[in-house]
Amino acid sequence: MDFTIKNVLIPTVDSYTTADVRVEKGAIAAIAPGLDAIGIQINGQNKLLLPGFFNAHTHSSEMWQRGIMSMLPLELWLAELYDFAALDLEKVYLSALATAVETLLSGGTSLVDHLVLIPAQELETIAAAVRAYKEVGIRAFVAPLIQDESLTAGIPSGGIKQNHEPYFRSTQATLALVEEAVKQFHRPDEGISILVAPTGIQLCSDALFEGCIELSQKYNLCRHSHLLETKAQQKLAQEKYGCTAVTHLQRLGYLDARTTLAHCVHLRDSDITILSETQSTVVHNPLSNLRLGSGIAPILKYRRAGINVTFGCDGASSNDSQDLLEAIKIGSILHNVTELDYRYWITPRQAVEMASTGGAKGLNVADRLGSLEIGKKADLVMYDLTNLSLLPRTDPIGLLVLGRPHNVVDSIWVNGKQIVADGKVTTIDVNNLRQELFNRSQWQEGQRFSPTVGEIEFHYRCVMGL
Amino acid sequence: MDFTIKNVLIPTVDSYTTADVRVEKGAIAAIAPGLDAIGIQINGQNKLLLPGFFNAHTHSSEMWQRGIMSMLPLELWLAELYDFAALDLEKVYLSALATAVETLLSGGTSLVDHLVLIPAQELETIAAAVRAYKEVGIRAFVAPLIQDESLTAGIPSGGIKQNHEPYFRSTQATLALVEEAVKQFHRPDEGISILVAPTGIQLCSDALFEGCIELSQKYNLCRHSHLLETKAQQKLAQEKYGCTAVTHLQRLGYLDARTTLAHCVHLRDSDITILSETQSTVVHNPLSNLRLGSGIAPILKYRRAGINVTFGCDGASSNDSQDLLEAIKIGSILHNVTELDYRYWITPRQAVEMASTGGAKGLNVADRLGSLEIGKKADLVMYDLTNLSLLPRTDPIGLLVLGRPHNVVDSIWVNGKQIVADGKVTTIDVNNLRQELFNRSQWQEGQRFSPTVGEIEFHYRCVMGL
Repeated sequence: MDFTIKNVLIPTVDSYTTADVRVEKGAIAAIAPGLDAIGIQINGQNKLLLPGFFNAHTHSSEMWQRGIMSMLPLELWLAELYDFAALDLEKVYLSALATAVETLLSGGTSLVDHLVLIPAQELETIAAAVRAYKEVGIRAFVAPLIQDESLTAGIPSGGIKQNHEPYFRSTQATLALVEEAVKQFHRPDEGISILVAPTGIQLCSDALFEGCIELSQKYNLCRHSHLLETKAQQKLAQEKYGCTAVTHLQRLGYLDARTTLAHCVHLRDSDITILSETQSTVVHNPLSNLRLGSGIAPILKYRRAGINVTFGCDGASSNDSQDLLEAIKIGSILHNVTELDYRYWITPRQAVEMASTGGAKGLNVADRLGSLEIGKKADLVMYDLTNLSLLPRTDPIGLLVLGRPHNVVDSIWVNGKQIVADGKVTTIDVNNLRQELFNRSQWQEGQRFSPTVGEIEFHYRCVMGL
Repeated sequence: MDFTIKNVLIPTVDSYTTADVRVEKGAIAAIAPGLDAIGIQINGQNKLLLPGFFNAHTHSSEMWQRGIMSMLPLELWLAELYDFAALDLEKVYLSALATAVETLLSGGTSLVDHLVLIPAQELETIAAAVRAYKEVGIRAFVAPLIQDESLTAGIPSGGIKQNHEPYFRSTQATLALVEEAVKQFHRPDEGISILVAPTGIQLCSDALFEGCIELSQKYNLCRHSHLLETKAQQKLAQEKYGCTAVTHLQRLGYLDARTTLAHCVHLRDSDITILSETQSTVVHNPLSNLRLGSGIAPILKYRRAGINVTFGCDGASSNDSQDLLEAIKIGSILHNVTELDYRYWITPRQAVEMASTGGAKGLNVADRLGSLEIGKKADLVMYDLTNLSLLPRTDPIGLLVLGRPHNVVDSIWVNGKQIVADGKVTTIDVNNLRQELFNRSQWQEGQRFSPTVGEIEFHYRCVMGL
């Protein structure tokens, strides 16, 4: 459906201008004042138009445990999560819907779902999430979360002999499953892409990484992974490889311009050079890194090294929201306390670029997405600048990034199709979604106890010197 | 107006219970299941009732510059702020209204407004803010921001001879003004208290602090001040006093159980002992401390030393929102990266206690406010737990503190009077406020340049080793 947005505020290099934006066949066809209106006319007055942002790392089904996870570091938190994360396909579908809705209403038009798979229903899990994203109309990069080692193998041994249960599925079976997912669901032109996404060096063999590289080459898939989220993972990499995780991944050939790496908290300077040389992208998940006590990722260093950085909310069990504007705000200002020289601090405009162009680069779609340019796909977000949280009128992008805007997304188009109008998602019944989430959950009574945390906590504390 | 909230969820020591809450003559009269409903009946089903939070440090008129301030450290940021902060009484009134509304709709029923005074209209400034708070019905602690040294005196000299303009008003005249404000506006029983509030050691003489102590004793006033927000202030204190700012303030006698100190980022261990011994309260402004690059206040250390800590948004030019739930979230999880042992991390329930009881203690009203107890004033916030941002149902307080809730405040009572119903402020016309804020402002075009920053930046960079 072609349309023309009339008199909307758009950013110029260091100011704003009021212009019309015409969209034809799902792409931006013209940007100029006083355009002839073709197709539907949209009133852009007192509104700001930006390219859609990328929620470049999340785990949608964690929505079911948000608000309730104990205050624990990643390794113990994961143990608690797995003890209580009973999922079914309907829950996967519903939490994908909710993740999409929260992402949209905070300015995101694309998301990367590092999707936890239900054992023995792996393809069905992917199908459920894909169905949700297609229904909502958000652009989805579905990254089936795979591993071939069991949970306890992710904690450093500290020199103590450990026996880990073998993982329940073979490396080959896992790779076959990803290949099948690609065949069934990888349809970039329809807004659904499959990524290869080994969870990270902490739970994956070299063979799994190598298999993923092969699939990535064979089908031209982007690559996704967690990387050095915690101090424990840094220790583990040394135990496993005798070198840093980044050096090891480079040797395997996993790092390249279509690789996005979530967290990247504990990297050495030599690792930073490698990420820069391989043109890998860092996905910054500031809120999760705070909640789990993982640390502050050295984002200003990455930017100075020329590394592409974008933002993610991470799963809702470790954040516990999918508000992308919150991730962008905190992910920008957090670093001011790591660097005295304010000339390196991230400005609101830089943050917007990281969230849009940065995401598109990392997902290998910068030729089609991530900016307001003629020829680019119309993944657009129009913000209502008359909302109280964006007043008084000052710098619209400053208000959006540094404030705490809510209810400010007026309209969203993905691939030229409108999916949010007047602040409401038009493609699904959000009220019904709310009712479903309500009905399938209960408020906690009393404290809950995770047996797995009980089993591994003593070892964890020893190894981490606590 | 007496009322009874029926079947509302309230927290118990480590769980929740459903009960009725009866309010008579502005105070909580009974909490139990199955109470006879006296007065108006309020349906509490699927709602959570908590004591109102304290936004324990803000500067309301900074609302006019939110979103637009450059990314600068405090000392330069202040210079920019003063270059552009042209205020009038109507603006003061409107930004106080807006600050009150944002505080309320994020769970706050009390605020401390460290109020910037318009020169030669000081009492009128206070009157304008007081009028706004009375109209909205929020409980306000108005702390007229005073100083008796001029802006450049707040930057360390670094041994370089400096000449500072004398401040335009004498110390005595300033103290007389505060005393007059007390006489005119200090009416704690009507919800308006005046605080003595010298801005901080960086811009105040000993005589000003001593005069404030006298007023505090004479009229039983709480005391408020910024304290060691930046590294520069730490240096300055050494230059000025040859000891830390905390030691100096203790010697002057400024620190006591009704003293709230905003920021407290750069304290030594010996300073922490002093705050603990004097029973002073720390007001944690995490977002402002990040945005201005001030640092991470050692809040976990304060808690371990038994110091009372509560939260503030700080002024909207350095945050740039007045969302108290955001300050509580970030002010809790931020510290997980400063302490490996997760057993010290702040839990959501602890955060709620800091925001409610902690605020009441600091403002010397813990006997009347800050908790759900029979006999306490009914400053109550009822949250709608069916909002999408608080679903699925898990731990209501966890969702509230760790999520990114919005549009979740259903009802608010202050002193038993309902001022928010169905999520809307009932005492003022918020739509009209929005229109006024819109009309009195303009979107920025191009970059703006602060002459004062231009004047002082070179010296600042030298002194700070940049």
